[in-house]
Amino acid sequence: MPMEQPRPSPSTAISGRCRVVIVGGGFGGLEAAHHLAGAPVSITLVDRRNHHLFQPLLYQVATASLATSEIAWPIRHLFRARPDVTTLFATVTGIDTTAHRVLLEDGDVLPYDTLILATGARHAYFGHDEWEPFAPGLKTLEDATTLRRRILVAFERAERETDPQRRAALLTFVIIGGGPTGVELAGTIAELARDTLPADFRNIDTQQARVVLIEAGSRVLAGFADDLSAYAQRSLESLGVEVMLGHPVTACTADGVLYGGTRLDAKTLIWAAGVRASPAAEWLNASADRAGRVAVNPDLTVPGHPEIFAIGDTVTVAGPDGHPVPGIAPAAKQQGRYVADIIKARLRGIDNVSAPFRYVHAGSLAQIGKRLAVIDFGRIKLRGTLAWWIWGIAHIYFLIGLRNRLSVALSWLWIHARNQRSARLITQGSSKVAK
Amino acid sequence: MPMEQPRPSPSTAISGRCRVVIVGGGFGGLEAAHHLAGAPVSITLVDRRNHHLFQPLLYQVATASLATSEIAWPIRHLFRARPDVTTLFATVTGIDTTAHRVLLEDGDVLPYDTLILATGARHAYFGHDEWEPFAPGLKTLEDATTLRRRILVAFERAERETDPQRRAALLTFVIIGGGPTGVELAGTIAELARDTLPADFRNIDTQQARVVLIEAGSRVLAGFADDLSAYAQRSLESLGVEVMLGHPVTACTADGVLYGGTRLDAKTLIWAAGVRASPAAEWLNASADRAGRVAVNPDLTVPGHPEIFAIGDTVTVAGPDGHPVPGIAPAAKQQGRYVADIIKARLRGIDNVSAPFRYVHAGSLAQIGKRLAVIDFGRIKLRGTLAWWIWGIAHIYFLIGLRNRLSVALSWLWIHARNQRSARLITQGSSKVAK
Repeated sequence: MPMEQPRPSPSTAISGRCRVVIVGGGFGGLEAAHHLAGAPVSITLVDRRNHHLFQPLLYQVATASLATSEIAWPIRHLFRARPDVTTLFATVTGIDTTAHRVLLEDGDVLPYDTLILATGARHAYFGHDEWEPFAPGLKTLEDATTLRRRILVAFERAERETDPQRRAALLTFVIIGGGPTGVELAGTIAELARDTLPADFRNIDTQQARVVLIEAGSRVLAGFADDLSAYAQRSLESLGVEVMLGHPVTACTADGVLYGGTRLDAKTLIWAAGVRASPAAEWLNASADRAGRVAVNPDLTVPGHPEIFAIGDTVTVAGPDGHPVPGIAPAAKQQGRYVADIIKARLRGIDNVSAPFRYVHAGSLAQIGKRLAVIDFGRIKLRGTLAWWIWGIAHIYFLIGLRNRLSVALSWLWIHARNQRSARLITQGSSKVAK
Repeated sequence: MPMEQPRPSPSTAISGRCRVVIVGGGFGGLEAAHHLAGAPVSITLVDRRNHHLFQPLLYQVATASLATSEIAWPIRHLFRARPDVTTLFATVTGIDTTAHRVLLEDGDVLPYDTLILATGARHAYFGHDEWEPFAPGLKTLEDATTLRRRILVAFERAERETDPQRRAALLTFVIIGGGPTGVELAGTIAELARDTLPADFRNIDTQQARVVLIEAGSRVLAGFADDLSAYAQRSLESLGVEVMLGHPVTACTADGVLYGGTRLDAKTLIWAAGVRASPAAEWLNASADRAGRVAVNPDLTVPGHPEIFAIGDTVTVAGPDGHPVPGIAPAAKQQGRYVADIIKARLRGIDNVSAPFRYVHAGSLAQIGKRLAVIDFGRIKLRGTLAWWIWGIAHIYFLIGLRNRLSVALSWLWIHARNQRSARLITQGSSKVAK
């Protein structure tokens, strides 16, 4: 109803309590809402999705290892026992910082006393948005099922292709970006081709599929210690992944990729090279870094707006070592908790919380393949089978609810015992795309 | 490549064995392929989907009870141990009955010695195809996730709607058709609104949602015994479903439905009233009944084409009681087995198998809700908790593979112990649709 007068959404007219609006139901937004439990606030949590997504395992949906519902939860269900939390399935289009109102796409407005922006990031193409259709990224469930369709359809098309060159291009999978997502995707696609699919096809040998990981920097997993990076690379290569370092990609097309002067024919490209913050900085007219992240104060408030906090991938803030806090789930959660604590302190009349946000890095984990993982706890560095068990147990632990934990454990058991990936479904596209 | 000369697909050039092409990987097609194991044939199984779908539980995907991957299997994976079976992910557009070739959308052709058409059915609107956008049906995984989105979005929109009349229309769910699918959908939506959702919403009482089942005939579950129909109706009513009998629907619009002169405002309509066979009859230029089903010979061959069999929902054939064989999975499977036996007999030189196809009706099952089901075994009729247990065990038994059996059992356990339906995901549509 764009022509009507803006009117307060019914959902926020709950009480005279301090109105906290949280935009975004990712790790940071949820954690803030959880840690505001018991405070005299009325929370409205807005997300344009109806579900919270466990992004660290999203690559497993893209590679047919997990089902969508195993890593996603309806946000309102997570707060069913919290009458102080109202969940809104709506898209934010802007913020009126003068009138203290969040503007929604449908013309409604959400008045706030305190605002928490936890809007996350999308993949970014460094000024080459025209690459997106050819090299899609991985941020949402739809991204994941789209990638899954592309990967599975490539094998299907190869099975029916008689031209050797075209068949080779169909069986070449290029992952751009050697961070955790890129490494995990490359390893899992290699295992899919090597262990899961061979017996299913008649005309192609899926073990001949090429999986190429292209990284502009000098090593994969740049956030990890050097020797773990080297181990990760060796592990990938043992799975048959070709690791190409030191060459930025200079073109992505429907037929392949250009990197460091080399042209590689490939029908499936996946973008895992960079992210860009959601438009929160534009909404606020705030200063941001090149990736669109809001430059927040040390207490995570937006400069000039003590009533607005921004957390997670939406912001850039320095960590204890001077480097920016990484864009990972634990960092977002710590920020959500920190902000909830400040709000609670303010409600108790303590207006100046002097301690700035201090990020504690628990460790970095990445799975490469079956019984192959690396963990960098700082002093302790683990690799191989033990690291893989810790990786698996940690991820199951961080899932929400016993039901999804059991379900993911069951899926992983089958993958590891039988190489069977049960979510190999091509949906939202008919066989027309298959040739 | 529509301009090229038709060329044999590489996949069929396997050997000099008798070439059997099966179109459709549903219950009938799969069963035929399974029962041809060991015969001196080379089988090509074509489907425009890459997965076999367990349609009897599709309504549970539409109602967020099960995940898509729990009731679907990649067809080629099911035949990984059968080198005589080649799976083709392709769309059939016609049949050249003179040259004995199946025509594919991409211009390829599949030569056959024996053809089995098991192409199934789509929902049908009795000449009112314009109703489809307002009252979608349920035949594919995409149909199910679309319905799931519509149902969940209706509750989301109601939560934010302030106008009482519009809110009531959003909270009215109309199911058209009182067969097993309609009954199962109505019961499950009622339980979703009554047991799963109430605690999640703040502005609406989801228990006030109206679920209306409209059936043109005089009773629900017309294929069951009278007293079971009556029990099913009482059970639905105990769940809060309004059962409207004896009134055909005369209009479906974006705002509701018209039936028997009554107008009902409803934003969610679901079509479960009729099916129409796939265009196999048109491909063959064969005579068909009003629902498009091929009128086959008693041995399931197409008149004039002893080398072409048609089975399952594609055909109409009389059962032992003179009534047409019902369009259910067991019937399709029996036909698939029968056809495989004829083909094997012919390969042994027995050309005239005199025994016509004889359908054996094992029983009719329908779930209405938790611990509510009806089973009509003919002489034995069951209802209530015992019937529900048998229904559940039978459906888990008929799923393929231990992994999916465990997974579905786990999902059902959670629904029944905790009322938690884990697949409540709104995908393939942003919050724009939510208001």
